Amino acid sequence: MHEPARAVVERYWALMASNDFHAVGEVLADDFVFDMPQSGERIRGRERYATMNAQYPAHGPWRFTRRRLLVDGDTALTETDVTDGVVRARALSLFTVREGRIASLVEYWPEPFALAPERAALVEPGPSMDDG
Amino acid sequence: MHEPARAVVERYWALMASNDFHAVGEVLADDFVFDMPQSGERIRGRERYATMNAQYPAHGPWRFTRRRLLVDGDTALTETDVTDGVVRARALSLFTVREGRIASLVEYWPEPFALAPERAALVEPGPSMDDG
Repeated sequence: MHEPARAVVERYWALMASNDFHAVGEVLADDFVFDMPQSGERIRGRERYATMNAQYPAHGPWRFTRRRLLVDGDTALTETDVTDGVVRARALSLFTVREGRIASLVEYWPEPFALAPERAALVEPGPSMDDG
Repeated sequence: MHEPARAVVERYWALMASNDFHAVGEVLADDFVFDMPQSGERIRGRERYATMNAQYPAHGPWRFTRRRLLVDGDTALTETDVTDGVVRARALSLFTVREGRIASLVEYWPEPFALAPERAALVEPGPSMDDG
């Protein structure tokens, strides 16, 4: 009996919170694939994925704050605030879990954009990514 | 007995596909709220939401291609390719359903970004938003 997708994704984020990015590999499948469709970058395997995270420039330890977790069968989405104390970003992470490990992760990093003047009359200030 | 979240979200996208953005209002709650955290824009109510969609500049009818739908209780995520035949974009839409209608929609529009040179050695070409 394999761990359900929700528990696997919870474990992934607990390991990410440790900032020991090599340890994260224990919840990744041997043939893990990480995709960022915004740049068309694909990274295969837990070693390369750990290296990418470990070498990413940081002002301090990365902190991850869960906003949402949706689980539907073997797939899950998390919406997460990410900061190193200086940089702030939001990640939308789409997980596919297979046999208790993460087989694939497709991740989006939306960036701030300016209010569109043509809809200014329809709009009021709402929650922003910058609120953290 | 209200329609389950999955059916409500399916109906939302079927109505969007009609490009009759005022008709979309039938699946929205009276106090519907639409948020775009990237700009901090909030739009309240089905009328203003319809106006925003109807007035958005377009080269032709909008087509919406579902990539994923995840449903977890009263919340759902869709990952959707959007095009008017010229402009192409991808939307990540987080729905909260209440009593058979959409109470809130939080939407992200991630934009393309360049491959990061510092991870070029770890990366291979993968699926990109531009693939459609």
